Amino acid sequence: MEATAIVTILALLQFVWFAIQVGSMRVKHEVKAPAMSGPPEFERMMRVQQNTMEQLVVFLPALWLYAYYVNPLWGAGIGFVYVIGRFVYRAAYLEDPAKRSLGFTLGFTATATLLVWALVAISLDLLR
Amino acid sequence: MEATAIVTILALLQFVWFAIQVGSMRVKHEVKAPAMSGPPEFERMMRVQQNTMEQLVVFLPALWLYAYYVNPLWGAGIGFVYVIGRFVYRAAYLEDPAKRSLGFTLGFTATATLLVWALVAISLDLLR
Amino acid sequence: MEATAIVTILALLQFVWFAIQVGSMRVKHEVKAPAMSGPPEFERMMRVQQNTMEQLVVFLPALWLYAYYVNPLWGAGIGFVYVIGRFVYRAAYLEDPAKRSLGFTLGFTATATLLVWALVAISLDLLR
Repeated sequence: MEATAIVTILALLQFVWFAIQVGSMRVKHEVKAPAMSGPPEFERMMRVQQNTMEQLVVFLPALWLYAYYVNPLWGAGIGFVYVIGRFVYRAAYLEDPAKRSLGFTLGFTATATLLVWALVAISLDLLR
Repeated sequence: MEATAIVTILALLQFVWFAIQVGSMRVKHEVKAPAMSGPPEFERMMRVQQNTMEQLVVFLPALWLYAYYVNPLWGAGIGFVYVIGRFVYRAAYLEDPAKRSLGFTLGFTATATLLVWALVAISLDLLR
Repeated sequence: MEATAIVTILALLQFVWFAIQVGSMRVKHEVKAPAMSGPPEFERMMRVQQNTMEQLVVFLPALWLYAYYVNPLWGAGIGFVYVIGRFVYRAAYLEDPAKRSLGFTLGFTATATLLVWALVAISLDLLR
């Protein structure tokens, strides 16, 4: 499960890095807490971080269930695609939120694959 | 732990479905990202999803700790009540946010039961 | 892993308690759902809860990876610092959001320590 653990830590470090960038933009644009609205650059980065949290909450359990019930190495590979997808999402969203589909789809497809494949594998186990 | 895994995946698929509905309402009501405010239907669905994420973050660890330290089958049963509670919450919230208590209480009671029971079981283990 | 489980439950109960306080302030200040803006006291508590969720999502996996790959007892100790940090953060933020750094740094340093140390331990394992 070492590969699963490493992909988990990469996804967490990525999220922490996104959160740090939201903090930097708070300082840069003087958006004082607890305000959540501000210039587009700040709001975009904040939405990238929030959306990444929503994805992460599904991705991590999906990754571990897949690793345990299907295959940890394949899981790490698909998990790596999730991390790449989130970087693509961030870059596109900051440029223009309307362009966020590709990165989103990449990350989401990775998560959905892990989740549905794990469900099928567990269901087949139970039917055996 | 297969029952625990299946309830986990159901709760995750439910959350993903709620997130997809937020996305659909963004398109339907033309609420362009990164905007987070819009017509009531959009804001309600978004709050249902956000609140479900807050609950999920507590529910999943509680479910697994209960499964491991108390009983996986009972855990899956209580976990199923959580999923039902969240569907009731969604339906009521979309109709009228003031009616959200019943569904919320159902889901929250399930989570709190798992969490507190697991804490008691672990504490008794340590005292033995 | 009992110590890890207990710190997990403490961190979850803390988050639940923060969420309950947001709910109380909704009632007290008559901020009707789905509204997310209101008087400073409400918005501050809501931001404390949201930020705690963001931290929790990283903290829990970091705590368990550290417990498994490094040492569960040390992990519980560092995890306890996280919980303290979050209480300090809450108290300071409610008084004045500008004073939130100390509590934030305490909690975040705990999480970052768990995460990076786990990554180093796993990487060394793989190189052996």
